[in-house]
Amino acid sequence: MSVHARYRSDEGLETLRSTPVIEHLLAHRSVRVYLPDPLPEGTVETLVAAAQSAASSSNLQVWSVVAVEDAQRKARLARLAGNQKHIVEAPLLLVWLIDFDRLTRLGEAAGQTPHALDYTETFLLGAVDTALAAQNAVVALEALELGSVFIGGIRNHPLEVAEELALPPRLFPLFGLVVGKPDPERPAAIKPRLPQAAVLHRERYLWSDDQLRQAESYNDRLRVFQREQAMPEIDWTAQALRRTAGPDSMAGRDRLREILDARGFPLL
Amino acid sequence: MSVHARYRSDEGLETLRSTPVIEHLLAHRSVRVYLPDPLPEGTVETLVAAAQSAASSSNLQVWSVVAVEDAQRKARLARLAGNQKHIVEAPLLLVWLIDFDRLTRLGEAAGQTPHALDYTETFLLGAVDTALAAQNAVVALEALELGSVFIGGIRNHPLEVAEELALPPRLFPLFGLVVGKPDPERPAAIKPRLPQAAVLHRERYLWSDDQLRQAESYNDRLRVFQREQAMPEIDWTAQALRRTAGPDSMAGRDRLREILDARGFPLL
Repeated sequence: MSVHARYRSDEGLETLRSTPVIEHLLAHRSVRVYLPDPLPEGTVETLVAAAQSAASSSNLQVWSVVAVEDAQRKARLARLAGNQKHIVEAPLLLVWLIDFDRLTRLGEAAGQTPHALDYTETFLLGAVDTALAAQNAVVALEALELGSVFIGGIRNHPLEVAEELALPPRLFPLFGLVVGKPDPERPAAIKPRLPQAAVLHRERYLWSDDQLRQAESYNDRLRVFQREQAMPEIDWTAQALRRTAGPDSMAGRDRLREILDARGFPLL
Repeated sequence: MSVHARYRSDEGLETLRSTPVIEHLLAHRSVRVYLPDPLPEGTVETLVAAAQSAASSSNLQVWSVVAVEDAQRKARLARLAGNQKHIVEAPLLLVWLIDFDRLTRLGEAAGQTPHALDYTETFLLGAVDTALAAQNAVVALEALELGSVFIGGIRNHPLEVAEELALPPRLFPLFGLVVGKPDPERPAAIKPRLPQAAVLHRERYLWSDDQLRQAESYNDRLRVFQREQAMPEIDWTAQALRRTAGPDSMAGRDRLREILDARGFPLL
């Protein structure tokens, strides 16, 4: 069962319930090697239908998505997103947008200004709803025997991405999602996660020094995974702290706040 | 098929692909009437395993979740979240947290300060990853014949929620998720969404006045749904513009930015 690969331990997981859908979710892996095969007709529409079936806060539906299949555009976006070659190789890049443009225009037509769109709260709501939608697309595409990987690097250069996709203000490219047929010769593996005891709290949040020990044991389990995958062996703790060290570790995304402001998201 | 209920039209959906998992996703509905039945053993752990199986940006795993089952605590949280009675009635409330506390403490133990956690970008990454995780939990719980509804109202009073859940700084309650057995006597319905033509763009974002017409036709479709559900009949456009009118329509969430700052998220 995939749960063993996910945790590399059975501790505390004896009572886990299983159905085909749950097994499908547990078997997720991010795919970074694709075949160039085009996607069957109707694939994008199927993923969008799944995405739109996710919950939407107050039914505001403040997201849109751009499906990019043009090879040259994908290549340009790949460069902007930190030269990730799977964007070039896979047939489809979905760019998920927080969309406050639609409500702004509907407001103009109705003679009303939706001032709440200027607030941090509403931007956060937009990010959450866009992510809920995209995750449903991920679950759906795996049911079609496709694979995917999220591209946070789409936020490395949001202004250039906006220009490439002809985005008006109040549309923010939150992340990309590469979609394609996984290369069966180089299959992706299920990445182990922190033990549940590190992320699940009962009734109240309780930090204890046991969490430090759990992180340590996770470092050990992840090292086994890294060895299996012929990846560089590095502690998760060290890796996460390096990634969050500061502006220099952020690939330009430390400028996000000013860019959002310039793009019509003042985050009041 | 659920896709008809989702769009109330077949236009442009002739090529949609279907599998049991995709049909499962399309059939999602938010449930607001629950039986008080306790959840079978292992349910929470199963949902967390599904949640942890979602992608995690740079594998940072910056979220945690508090499972609240105590009736009195649920009642207090219900009051803080705008008196939503389903929080009281259902047996479980999951409160999903952006968690920068864990990396901060691991950093302290390692003598390093993760400065990137202070930035808007990293907060946004945390919101996205928390939402991806929670959506997987939603898909999993529906496979267990349970229902759920997201509680954005958990952000109405984040400081009081933080106190109730004993959250240290750098933990932010992003949303709640009510989980329970749907009352079969009052089943929830599939809510229609905007037509795909309104949210799906090809290669580049293209707004056209056709989008205004699509919103109009959506108003009509949603009105049929409202009538079926004996809900007040109101245009989606009017409803969305009322909800986003300004600070007075935000149930206190217009103060989110200063609250985040006070809770250790300066959003640089």
